[in-house]
Amino acid sequence: MVVKVYGPHCASAKRVLVCLIEKEIEFEVVPINVLEGEHKNPEYLKLQPFGTIPVIQDGDYTLYESRAIMRYYAEKYRSQGVELLGKTIEEKGLIEQWLEVEAQNYHPSAYNLTVHVLFPALLADNTPNPKVIEESEAKLVKVLDIYEERLSKSKYLAGDFFSLADISHLPFTDYIVKYMGKEYLIKDRKHVSAWWDDISSRPSWKKVLELYSPPI
Amino acid sequence: MVVKVYGPHCASAKRVLVCLIEKEIEFEVVPINVLEGEHKNPEYLKLQPFGTIPVIQDGDYTLYESRAIMRYYAEKYRSQGVELLGKTIEEKGLIEQWLEVEAQNYHPSAYNLTVHVLFPALLADNTPNPKVIEESEAKLVKVLDIYEERLSKSKYLAGDFFSLADISHLPFTDYIVKYMGKEYLIKDRKHVSAWWDDISSRPSWKKVLELYSPPI
Repeated sequence: MVVKVYGPHCASAKRVLVCLIEKEIEFEVVPINVLEGEHKNPEYLKLQPFGTIPVIQDGDYTLYESRAIMRYYAEKYRSQGVELLGKTIEEKGLIEQWLEVEAQNYHPSAYNLTVHVLFPALLADNTPNPKVIEESEAKLVKVLDIYEERLSKSKYLAGDFFSLADISHLPFTDYIVKYMGKEYLIKDRKHVSAWWDDISSRPSWKKVLELYSPPI
Repeated sequence: MVVKVYGPHCASAKRVLVCLIEKEIEFEVVPINVLEGEHKNPEYLKLQPFGTIPVIQDGDYTLYESRAIMRYYAEKYRSQGVELLGKTIEEKGLIEQWLEVEAQNYHPSAYNLTVHVLFPALLADNTPNPKVIEESEAKLVKVLDIYEERLSKSKYLAGDFFSLADISHLPFTDYIVKYMGKEYLIKDRKHVSAWWDDISSRPSWKKVLELYSPPI
């Protein structure tokens, strides 16, 4: 069964796409134009009632939330492609910890920066808020200082192994590094920078960018 | 090995405590006084560098982020106590989906309401913001309308089985129902209300409240 991924050009869907490529799982895509509001169409809301990207269909199985979809495929195809959940249950626990750190600490600020700096059309009043930009960057600085300390001790976030926790950072960090003029947030931190160079040079990520460039 | 849980009186730690009780895992607690800033002490930051509650120690294994800790124990003791991860990998996928919905859609608004209505001392300027309260409630209304639709079709969020996805909603919904005068958010929705009555009357949750009442 080929996995159908909705909204491949959106950042969150790219987490799923990288995961599928790393796990050597065949997929096809259904473009959703977020800037034209297609994610709020009744047809899409039947699949994803919250109106967010992505959602996948796999036969008659439908699943949304990018990190949940990654976990599902990384576990379902555990022995196929690259291992993304660690070797032991303790390693998996740390992967879950850093996936949550990404979701709770990194993502909200990275997302706010992305929307206010790059996609103000997605905001209710179409107007970027300089205070939100300033506060989001300040929060991200604190989070990245902790990442720097962590990555001085292990090659990847959860340990010396690549995992879902690293994948989860790819799409929004790509925006920060390439499109916002804020690449110093990553580059000025030795260990974060080396980690970023490593994970962003993986063939899976390069392929996702080549196939589904961001809508910018 | 007895699991040591830091910050048992805090809402997020209660997710972990309920999970440990459901899985029949022995634990002890280390109180952390958040209102006095103990979660920002150097000693605590060594365990949890982001300064958030909870963190657990299990022998020499340390883990933070409540949803990650729940996943770790629910999987490590899969065959002990109540099954909290579903029976099939597809059920587990849906549990992950609803855990993410809670983390991404429900929690941010429930958390903002909690802090601004009940614990303004935790805010930088100690002052509740009526606009944040209003916007958070409006967002929660939209989320709960989708929950109502979902819970008209299945007894629990991920399906007809209790899971981590339900547990994750307990602590902050308890604040909403009992302490904010906003119980109508839950009670005015037939299926959400029945679901809440069901999960909040579980002995595990009652025991957590009895042992570690909220700091209010």
